[in-house]
Amino acid sequence: MSTKRRIGPSSENTRSAILDLIRSSGTVSRIELAEMSGLTATSITRVVKSLIDDRLVAETGFGDSTGGKRRSLLQINPHARYAVGLSLGDARLTYVVTDLAGNVVGQLVSPGIGQAAPGTEIVRIADELEQIFRQLDIPTEDVVGVGVAGAGLDLGAGDRLSLTADEWDAFPVQETLESLVGLPVVRDNDAACAALGQFWVGRIPATQDFATLYMARGFGLGLMTGGGVSRGSSSNVGEIGHLVVDIDGPDCWCGSRGCLEMLAAPRAVIAQAIADGGLAAELGLVGDDERLRQDFDAIARAASRGDDRCVALIERSARYVAAAVLSVVNLLDLDRLYLAGPGFADAGAIYVAAIRDLVGRAARTRAVHGVTVELSDPGLDTSAVGAATLALQHVLTPHTRIERTSVRADSPATV
Amino acid sequence: MSTKRRIGPSSENTRSAILDLIRSSGTVSRIELAEMSGLTATSITRVVKSLIDDRLVAETGFGDSTGGKRRSLLQINPHARYAVGLSLGDARLTYVVTDLAGNVVGQLVSPGIGQAAPGTEIVRIADELEQIFRQLDIPTEDVVGVGVAGAGLDLGAGDRLSLTADEWDAFPVQETLESLVGLPVVRDNDAACAALGQFWVGRIPATQDFATLYMARGFGLGLMTGGGVSRGSSSNVGEIGHLVVDIDGPDCWCGSRGCLEMLAAPRAVIAQAIADGGLAAELGLVGDDERLRQDFDAIARAASRGDDRCVALIERSARYVAAAVLSVVNLLDLDRLYLAGPGFADAGAIYVAAIRDLVGRAARTRAVHGVTVELSDPGLDTSAVGAATLALQHVLTPHTRIERTSVRADSPATV
Repeated sequence: MSTKRRIGPSSENTRSAILDLIRSSGTVSRIELAEMSGLTATSITRVVKSLIDDRLVAETGFGDSTGGKRRSLLQINPHARYAVGLSLGDARLTYVVTDLAGNVVGQLVSPGIGQAAPGTEIVRIADELEQIFRQLDIPTEDVVGVGVAGAGLDLGAGDRLSLTADEWDAFPVQETLESLVGLPVVRDNDAACAALGQFWVGRIPATQDFATLYMARGFGLGLMTGGGVSRGSSSNVGEIGHLVVDIDGPDCWCGSRGCLEMLAAPRAVIAQAIADGGLAAELGLVGDDERLRQDFDAIARAASRGDDRCVALIERSARYVAAAVLSVVNLLDLDRLYLAGPGFADAGAIYVAAIRDLVGRAARTRAVHGVTVELSDPGLDTSAVGAATLALQHVLTPHTRIERTSVRADSPATV
Repeated sequence: MSTKRRIGPSSENTRSAILDLIRSSGTVSRIELAEMSGLTATSITRVVKSLIDDRLVAETGFGDSTGGKRRSLLQINPHARYAVGLSLGDARLTYVVTDLAGNVVGQLVSPGIGQAAPGTEIVRIADELEQIFRQLDIPTEDVVGVGVAGAGLDLGAGDRLSLTADEWDAFPVQETLESLVGLPVVRDNDAACAALGQFWVGRIPATQDFATLYMARGFGLGLMTGGGVSRGSSSNVGEIGHLVVDIDGPDCWCGSRGCLEMLAAPRAVIAQAIADGGLAAELGLVGDDERLRQDFDAIARAASRGDDRCVALIERSARYVAAAVLSVVNLLDLDRLYLAGPGFADAGAIYVAAIRDLVGRAARTRAVHGVTVELSDPGLDTSAVGAATLALQHVLTPHTRIERTSVRADSPATV
């Protein structure tokens, strides 16, 4: 099995790719790096020297000799730099501080943004960031930046219209936070961040493509291909919530009908639960948007405890999710999928079972290969970890991602 | 707008990429190639020399000087080599002979494979290939190979199980044809070939991703990303026919329900037409699989002439197709889609209108960018052209595509 990757000649890309190869290898020799990357020994020596000079990589002893000079081994120097990832959730904010190796060295959870005004919340976020650095005793100059994961945010959107009408989308999160904390800030949607976090935390090789289905208020799909997040023509890949799964189904606010989100997202599950007056009273369901996360979690927890009525509600949602996942597995020939996000926190097992069952029975490629379906590590908020990774990548290798986006945005398009 | 592409250091990949840059540029100088590829002038000079030595590229005069030595311009030497593409259709076989620049220099249409046994049909195909070379006066040694596009065929499947139970899939098309004609043969599914053909014929830049929806008996989606065909974990990307568009719809043979194919493919349209006895008699519909193409074409032609009953049948099919396309546009953030294949030959305009309408109303990114939806040039069989392109790529740059597939196939997978 070959694991050779093509690495571009641009020095920033090369540096990023070599750093990534060292990270995913654990320890590795220069000769192995040359073999894996296809670059010359001279290029590898030059790039490694610059990484060591910047303290990003360290030499860590010697591997087996093949007869000649003993091979010195390289590994990431984890404590050289830190990054912060922030997952902007309705019910809570999760801050994760990672070192260069992606190890989580600190975490803070605080109340969610709920319906509060961005202008006041962003000041609180800046305060909480300073508090984290102080508590962890990390000098600001060792922090490369802050990554922010949230619904509907898209990387590189600039002044183009946002996809949602949310107040947070119109608010200049990036610029405001940068000026408040004096650090570079990058933002991306939570599904893309969750996929990137899975890639980093799970030490998944770049040759293994996979998808992460994220559920919060709605759904998003992060797609990792060739070790990078798929972006599409305007950085808005992953709108799986608007897959049409029931063509004669209810009208969706997006302009279409029978979208996954209308049928299976927390709001739909809560509406059905509220219709059962006894259940609503028992679980203390409120049924308004501000309490959406709490309401859904109550139903999901009851389902995981085995309450038949709630199991039925979650299984109904899971049936739609499974159909959408099967569609994507067939379309993209996926062999690996993770589920992440607060929507899967309490009743994720029911969703996993429904997806495994349908995909196992009906995936077009089932005779050729299986499809792994797993919950992301529930102890970690992978989208926050991914946001931190995004900050690491963005700051250590500027322009790598952005360039491609801006090329696409200029492409001619009609309709 | 930057058009810089990352080009890998492997010499075969580099050769392929430089050849592709020269093709897509029309005429280009070495300095421009260095700028576009990011490779050094020395590397460009070396690669270009090898391409000229092999007669693949020719010098063609001088461009503007920027003060120093005048820049000699390069272009593809179109008549240095030829390739054949064969589209294996039910109703007809289309052979296309292209030169190195992708120009079609010859074409032959013969009866389709219908329900005939592969063993006898493959001998006829070999005879027809020899006939074409004779008629075009092309020496066999200038033919780099034969590409074959067909339903369900997947590149690099080796001895793994096929996706369809079709007799053609179990038959070793590639090996048998190679031994009969003495030329390398590559095969791929028709949707992937149609996308590759569109890329080549339409001189689409590698930075412009797009999809081609192919309709024959069923549906396939070819996805071009970064100038290459997306492959997925086992070279089976594009099974759009099994997107679930009606979760409570009819059972599908694949194990799922309400798949696009069950609701919108020619067989479904014919079944509805047959239910109208008067219409069936009028159009001479037969209703068995062997006559599927002729039956569907009769309905599609009547629809394009404005027959209300047939317009309604095609519009019903188009409604499902539009919902599936919208789902894919949302999922992958596409901004360009082509329709190709015999299913769109007669009533393609009705499908285009339905897709443009729904995508224009409901695509999640409609505020950010439009989505171009167009029929492939109906005068060309783009899947045959793409199959020829596949042969050119495969033979001129061996291993480029195959390697990635074999990496994926070995990846661990469960369920």
